[in-house]
Amino acid sequence: MKLSRLVEQIKEKQTFLCVGLDSDVDRLPEGLSRDLDGLVEFNRAIIEATRDSCVAYKINTAFYERYGSSGWKALEKTRAILPNTHFLIADAKRGDIGNTSSYYATCFFEHLDFDALTVAPYMGRDSIEPFLGYADKHAILLGITSNPGSADFQKTRAEDGEMMFEKVLQKAIHWGSPENLMFVCGATQGAHLSRARKIAPAHFFLVPGVGYQGGDLRTVCKHALNNNIGLLVNSSRGIIYASSAKDFQRASAEKAREVSLEMKKIIQNTLI
Amino acid sequence: MKLSRLVEQIKEKQTFLCVGLDSDVDRLPEGLSRDLDGLVEFNRAIIEATRDSCVAYKINTAFYERYGSSGWKALEKTRAILPNTHFLIADAKRGDIGNTSSYYATCFFEHLDFDALTVAPYMGRDSIEPFLGYADKHAILLGITSNPGSADFQKTRAEDGEMMFEKVLQKAIHWGSPENLMFVCGATQGAHLSRARKIAPAHFFLVPGVGYQGGDLRTVCKHALNNNIGLLVNSSRGIIYASSAKDFQRASAEKAREVSLEMKKIIQNTLI
Repeated sequence: MKLSRLVEQIKEKQTFLCVGLDSDVDRLPEGLSRDLDGLVEFNRAIIEATRDSCVAYKINTAFYERYGSSGWKALEKTRAILPNTHFLIADAKRGDIGNTSSYYATCFFEHLDFDALTVAPYMGRDSIEPFLGYADKHAILLGITSNPGSADFQKTRAEDGEMMFEKVLQKAIHWGSPENLMFVCGATQGAHLSRARKIAPAHFFLVPGVGYQGGDLRTVCKHALNNNIGLLVNSSRGIIYASSAKDFQRASAEKAREVSLEMKKIIQNTLI
Repeated sequence: MKLSRLVEQIKEKQTFLCVGLDSDVDRLPEGLSRDLDGLVEFNRAIIEATRDSCVAYKINTAFYERYGSSGWKALEKTRAILPNTHFLIADAKRGDIGNTSSYYATCFFEHLDFDALTVAPYMGRDSIEPFLGYADKHAILLGITSNPGSADFQKTRAEDGEMMFEKVLQKAIHWGSPENLMFVCGATQGAHLSRARKIAPAHFFLVPGVGYQGGDLRTVCKHALNNNIGLLVNSSRGIIYASSAKDFQRASAEKAREVSLEMKKIIQNTLI
């Protein structure tokens, strides 16, 4: 999907919500079989319930890969029911030397036809470039993540006083453009988000960590909105596990609408 | 596999060779069908040809994942024919927030029963710990890699003058022990390998980059051997593509024996 189409959708729908399908066989609600068939049925129900309230879906590949090839089959089935109207992200955090990364790109951009893939930066430019060579596809590079471990290396100060995540953004914006490169910036990172936005004013940020991990939507927006909104804020557990009872679909729909409405208010206040 | 068993094998066999199954459907030799069945047959032939000359096998998951679930099926079939006498490495470079990493660990350590998995460090401690909680399993953390992109972030100097890869090793040795944690240190990194060895004297290093990528076995050994040898030196393309003709199995066996003999000489000189 072209970036311009994503921006249009955000403006049309007045939401920048990404629903995360971290769907876990062990946590399926009442009424569904606790196996991979049940998982795909669950995803179908969640997609139906949330599609009008979001512009993107994010699949966490580990939740499928856990079961090996049969989990990958469920991932493929889920991809087949994801609506191509939406911006579709594989959250797989891949990255390897050039010729190997190019096969991960084949998998996620060709075989599975996702719009975007999360990518780890540690191995540098040649590990990332294979993901930047596809028209209308997007590498989403880890910048500053939402987890406690983000303090270990991402915040290590370089000799000029800047932190590693700043170095990653500074270098990477010369490798890709806002058309093919986004960054993961965690909702829990407060003022670091402002710094990321200053370095990459036009790039979209995928923002995990709102809700369960303690991040706050308004704080994120205060630090990182840009003229195109520039954010895809992800919610996984808060929406998909809104209820574990038979009414889970209605509960997820309501929760997604609620988050989306808050986003609408933010967009309207921002554009005034 | 326990570390002590790996060390015993290295001493018994007088080799520290790891054969990398970066097996590529597009490069299968004459006489094999160019599909996933051919790929598994190729792996079977390479394993037969090399098992006496190596102590470890490394599977590059991207070469299988490229085909989605059917590629993963070929990966599972290949795992089933890998000999459990050998140290078995999944080179997948995974890593995510804690609960997600734990599912990658489930996949590679339980479902596929590999002995070790390569792991990316950028997300810090909680992204790595799930791989350290298994008896006789090993996380192999990226330290300093063999590719050109290693210069981008791994060699960024921190405010105390040390490079990022040194920071990664320094922190990680407190998270795991030589019993459950190894490091990837690329053969092309010359004197940086000495520095890595100084920081982590007792940890094993998985060393890619000998051969095709330009690294040299003797240079690696000069910088990074320890009392237990402490190295698994990987060769992929140099061995598995030793010939593209019908005699590929014989050619691969010869090449593996040759590399292994060079290792034997190094071990014998070292122990004198």
